[in-house]
Amino acid sequence: MKAIIQTDPADPRSLHWQETHIPTPREGEVLIQVAAAGLNRADTLQAQGHYPPPKGVSEVLGLEAAGVIVDPNGCVRPDGMPYREGDEVGALLSGGAYAEYTIVPAGQLTPVPDGFGLQETASVIEAACTIWSNLMMTAHLREGDTLLIHGGGGGIGIFATQLAHALGVRVAVTAGSPEKLDVCRRYGADVLINYHEEDFVKVVKELGGADVILDIIGAKYLEGNVSALAPDGHLVIIGMQGGVKGELNIGKLLAKRGNISATGLRYRDREDKARIVAETVENVWPMLEDGRICHHVDRVFPIQDAAEGHRALLDGEITGKAIFEVAR
Amino acid sequence: MKAIIQTDPADPRSLHWQETHIPTPREGEVLIQVAAAGLNRADTLQAQGHYPPPKGVSEVLGLEAAGVIVDPNGCVRPDGMPYREGDEVGALLSGGAYAEYTIVPAGQLTPVPDGFGLQETASVIEAACTIWSNLMMTAHLREGDTLLIHGGGGGIGIFATQLAHALGVRVAVTAGSPEKLDVCRRYGADVLINYHEEDFVKVVKELGGADVILDIIGAKYLEGNVSALAPDGHLVIIGMQGGVKGELNIGKLLAKRGNISATGLRYRDREDKARIVAETVENVWPMLEDGRICHHVDRVFPIQDAAEGHRALLDGEITGKAIFEVAR
Repeated sequence: MKAIIQTDPADPRSLHWQETHIPTPREGEVLIQVAAAGLNRADTLQAQGHYPPPKGVSEVLGLEAAGVIVDPNGCVRPDGMPYREGDEVGALLSGGAYAEYTIVPAGQLTPVPDGFGLQETASVIEAACTIWSNLMMTAHLREGDTLLIHGGGGGIGIFATQLAHALGVRVAVTAGSPEKLDVCRRYGADVLINYHEEDFVKVVKELGGADVILDIIGAKYLEGNVSALAPDGHLVIIGMQGGVKGELNIGKLLAKRGNISATGLRYRDREDKARIVAETVENVWPMLEDGRICHHVDRVFPIQDAAEGHRALLDGEITGKAIFEVAR
Repeated sequence: MKAIIQTDPADPRSLHWQETHIPTPREGEVLIQVAAAGLNRADTLQAQGHYPPPKGVSEVLGLEAAGVIVDPNGCVRPDGMPYREGDEVGALLSGGAYAEYTIVPAGQLTPVPDGFGLQETASVIEAACTIWSNLMMTAHLREGDTLLIHGGGGGIGIFATQLAHALGVRVAVTAGSPEKLDVCRRYGADVLINYHEEDFVKVVKELGGADVILDIIGAKYLEGNVSALAPDGHLVIIGMQGGVKGELNIGKLLAKRGNISATGLRYRDREDKARIVAETVENVWPMLEDGRICHHVDRVFPIQDAAEGHRALLDGEITGKAIFEVAR
C-alpha cells in the first residue's frame, strides 16, 4: 500500500506518498481501506515532532478516518453482530489515517451517520469525541448551564456551540472578528465576545460566571478563565495555543470550588476510547442525522498533497474542516 | 447566652466570653445547646480576618459542634421522624459553634456515633465531611488506587489515611519527622516520605504516580503535585499553607489528563452540605463505630480560653485534635 511517510523528522513539510507495508490487525482490531482522513491541528504538531504517537501505534499521521472494512478479523459490533467485509465505517485512531489501509481497534469504529458520506464521516469523529468526552463526561455540562467556548469560530468551537445549544445550554463564545462572531451566532451562540474589543472575564462575570469553560488557549487565558468560572465551575483545557505554563491562583480557585482538567483523546487506553466512542455515537450521531448539529467538509485535498494541506492549515487559509481524499 | 466575641477585628487574640443574643432558628433550622465545639485551623484564619463567614451566618467562630436540641422547630430527621427536644446531635456549621447555643440547618445534623461522647462527636465532623467529600465525591478514590496525603501526621492526614486504608487504597504520606511518620504507619500508611530527606515526586513516581493527591500546601507543592499525578489523576487542594499562587504546567497536566480541584465546605449551599453530611454519616460513621477509623480528642480547652486554644494551635503545641468544652 501507499501512505504518507515523513522522510525527514526535522522537516515537517517532508510528507511523501510512498510505498510501505500493509499493517496486520491483531486481536480485537479491524483492517480498513481508507477513503478519507481528517486533517487536525494535532497532525501538524506531530510532523513538527511535538506530539508522538503512543507506543505501538503507527508513525503514520492521522487521527480519524472513514472507509471500508477489508478484514473484520472476527471483531463484533456493539450490538453483538460481526463486522463484515465491505461495511462502511468511521474510525477514531491513535495514528495511521494518512494511508490506503489502517488498523482500528473495534471499539473505536463508528457507524456512518444517516445521510453522511465517508468524507463527512472522517471529518467529524475527532471533534465529536473530543467535545462529547470533555463537555459531558468530564465537565458534566447540564441544561441551563452557561458554557464559555474560546475560539468559537473554529471547527471545535462551532461543533461545541451547536451541541451545547441543542442541550439547552447558554453559550458564550470568544472570537477575533465580527464575521466569525456572526457565524457563531448563526450556530446558536447566545453571547458573542470579540476579544479585541471586550474583556471576556468581565462579560462572563456579568452573566454570573461560566459553569463550564472549553479552552484551547492554555496558559495565556488561565488566570482569566479561573476568574470567569462560576462556583463549582469546571475549566477544561484541550489546547495550548497560548502557551504551556501559567500562574494559577489557588486561592481564587478554592474560593469558588473550581475544577481544572486538561485532557486529550490520543493517549487514553482502548477501554476508555471505546467508552467515549460508544457514548458519542449514541448521543451525537442522532444530532448529526436530524440536523441539530450541522457539519460539513469545507476543503478536500488529495492525500498526495498532505504537505500542502498542513501548510494551508498553519497559514490560516482553512475555514472549518478539511479532509484528505484517498482514491482507490 | 454567652459566646466568644472578637472585640477587636484587628486583634485575633481578642476573643472574649461575653453575653449576646440567643439566635432564633428559621424554617428548616434547629436550635442546639452546645456541649463542645471543634477547634479548626480555619477558625484562626477567621480571627485574623482572612476567612469571613458566608452571608447571613453568625460572626461567632466555630465550624463544628455537638450538643442537645432545645428547639427542634418542626424539623425532621433523614428517616422522616421528627427531631425531639433533648436529642443529642453533632452539627456541621458555617459558623457559630463557640457559643452556648447555635442554630443548625437540619440537613447538617449528624447522629452521635455509637460509643462516642459529645466531645468526640464535635471533634470529628469537619474532618470526616471534608475528607469524604474530597476523596470520594470529588476525586472518586477507588480500591487499589494510590493516594498521596501531604501532612500525613496532622488531624486531616491521620483521618484520611485510616479511611483510605479501610477502603483498600495504597496510602503514601509526607511528614517532617520520623516520629510523625511512625504515627502515620501505625494508622495504615504504606509509604512514608520524610520531606526533609526525600523528594516526594521521585518516590511517588516510582510507585507509578498518585491517582489522588490530598493537599493542604497549595502553591509551594503545585508543580510537584502535578508531576506526581498518575494518568487521569486528581489533585484535590483543601489548604494553602504553602501559598496561594503557583505556576501550573498545563502541558504536563494535559499529557496525563490530570484534574485539579480546590474545594472547601463552608461556602457550599445547604443542599450540597446536606448531601455531604448524609453520605459521610452513611459511610464514615460505621467506620468510627467499629474502630476502622480510630479518632479521639487530644486536648480540651474550656471555651472561655478560646484565645489560648488558638495560640496553642498556631504555635504548633497541639498534636491531633483539640476541642472547646462548653459547660452547662
